[in-house]
Amino acid sequence: MQYSIGIDIGGTNSVMGIVDKMGNILFEAELITKDYEHLEGFVDASYDELFPQIVKLGKNNFKGIGIGAPNGNYYNGTIEFAPNLRWKGVLPLAKLFSDKFGLETTVTNDANAAAIGEMMHGAAKGMNDFIMVTLGTGVGSGFVANGKMIYGHDGFAGELGHVIAVRDGRLCGCGRKGCLETYTSATGIVRTANEFLETKSTSSLLRSVANITSKDIYDAAVQGDFLALEIFQFTGKILGQSLADAVAITSPEAIILFGGLAQAGKYIFEPTHKYMEENLLKIYQGKVKLLPSELRESDAAILGAASLIWNTDKVLV
Amino acid sequence: MQYSIGIDIGGTNSVMGIVDKMGNILFEAELITKDYEHLEGFVDASYDELFPQIVKLGKNNFKGIGIGAPNGNYYNGTIEFAPNLRWKGVLPLAKLFSDKFGLETTVTNDANAAAIGEMMHGAAKGMNDFIMVTLGTGVGSGFVANGKMIYGHDGFAGELGHVIAVRDGRLCGCGRKGCLETYTSATGIVRTANEFLETKSTSSLLRSVANITSKDIYDAAVQGDFLALEIFQFTGKILGQSLADAVAITSPEAIILFGGLAQAGKYIFEPTHKYMEENLLKIYQGKVKLLPSELRESDAAILGAASLIWNTDKVLV
Repeated sequence: MQYSIGIDIGGTNSVMGIVDKMGNILFEAELITKDYEHLEGFVDASYDELFPQIVKLGKNNFKGIGIGAPNGNYYNGTIEFAPNLRWKGVLPLAKLFSDKFGLETTVTNDANAAAIGEMMHGAAKGMNDFIMVTLGTGVGSGFVANGKMIYGHDGFAGELGHVIAVRDGRLCGCGRKGCLETYTSATGIVRTANEFLETKSTSSLLRSVANITSKDIYDAAVQGDFLALEIFQFTGKILGQSLADAVAITSPEAIILFGGLAQAGKYIFEPTHKYMEENLLKIYQGKVKLLPSELRESDAAILGAASLIWNTDKVLV
Repeated sequence: MQYSIGIDIGGTNSVMGIVDKMGNILFEAELITKDYEHLEGFVDASYDELFPQIVKLGKNNFKGIGIGAPNGNYYNGTIEFAPNLRWKGVLPLAKLFSDKFGLETTVTNDANAAAIGEMMHGAAKGMNDFIMVTLGTGVGSGFVANGKMIYGHDGFAGELGHVIAVRDGRLCGCGRKGCLETYTSATGIVRTANEFLETKSTSSLLRSVANITSKDIYDAAVQGDFLALEIFQFTGKILGQSLADAVAITSPEAIILFGGLAQAGKYIFEPTHKYMEENLLKIYQGKVKLLPSELRESDAAILGAASLIWNTDKVLV
């Protein structure tokens, strides 16, 4: 039996697992990304989690390590200027892992990895043209066209979270203004909640919550809280508008929503779908499915990252 | 020798030609698209232009007809709801041509055809990832990723002219508001000129021109007319902003500008490049070339359309 390791590095948490060729996850571990000041410390901690298991299964049976990371570069194995990570600048992620583990390592954007996971094992099975949108700490995306992941000329394609959703809008971690992720990520919806609470006089369950989280907004919406529902409407409107523009570029069969905010179900899907349809060019109306991911969040990321190893057609680091 | 026919249907003019496999155009003709109330009349007129030449070269030597048309659908050979054409609804373009000529016919978006022409014979030779943007009566685009044209799930991918450049902006022929093509097409820049002339008090050579055209604005800019230069700045800003968003999706090696407005050279390229760079996410800055087409406008369209015949991998109508 051959195995690969899939690692998903997120702004808040990172998950990693050992995967066989059929997509079974044999071992899983989690690290709090933010706890590691330096990438090297994170690599060491990953090694401590994984290496005992690697030894148990036999290191020779391991084909490599696939990593999905924010601003992960498929072509050269680096992460570069990732706005949601503590680790700044250009860092040789693949090299650090391959040196430490003695295993070939390949890297891509975390959202691209999730898209590959969804294509191999989830809601995008059999699709040649789809968009994966991850609504987590930030907003990521993976675009698949003609059955292939779009990495782009430099390996950084698919940054839907950084298209400008609102011209001169909210300040983003990337230094620009109005990026989609400042509105439709887990942190973005919290910004909206705080804004609405300040500027509107509507009574709301959220008024009694200190340090509101996206989960609080969801819980309030479930209880029929008017302001919470308005917050989801606003978030879905901005997401739907940006998705309509993305459809005009790649015309996908489906858009798959994934990540924390996508777990709000109808509260985010209904307004997003409504405003996407309203904003679509006529030729696209009624054609594009808006689907929830069919994989557990951590699974998709691990499976996607691991599948980089089975499917990669580039020279590994 | 084998030949194919390339036809480019534009909102104003249409060009057609007979092309050999090396990309030589052996015969060219032009029709005024707007003169034909019905598509059938246009097919008949095309036949009258081309058929004598087809007979001369031997009909058996012809491999087929490739057509680039606004909202042309690669998969089913139709044009559907093209906002810049007089011919409304869903029309069986490929079938009408193949019935009339007795030659297999394949159709795509006019901008996709131009992109293929540029990839085979022009500025995008050897590129795997680029965007072709046509700035004509409308704004069209063709996205190439991983060396392949992105047709999308329904055959209509690449409508960059209909991403929303200005939320709730100018009314577009497609019925929505703020589409890129209402600002950065030949007609869009004229709207800007008329707006600026009305709302600004700056003196300008354009004030003495009745029924301003994009050519008039260019001529005034060449003479250093301040308002004309402002009009180009404004147009380049809107185009640059939208291109920056498109880069975040497919991360191309180059963006190639083509069509009437692109012929304004530095007057449109300089502000577009400046505002594109200003609006790019850091990881893309300084990486994306902004290039003029290397083919004569009519050639790119004819060659691209014709190459659909040499390179098509779908069942022809």
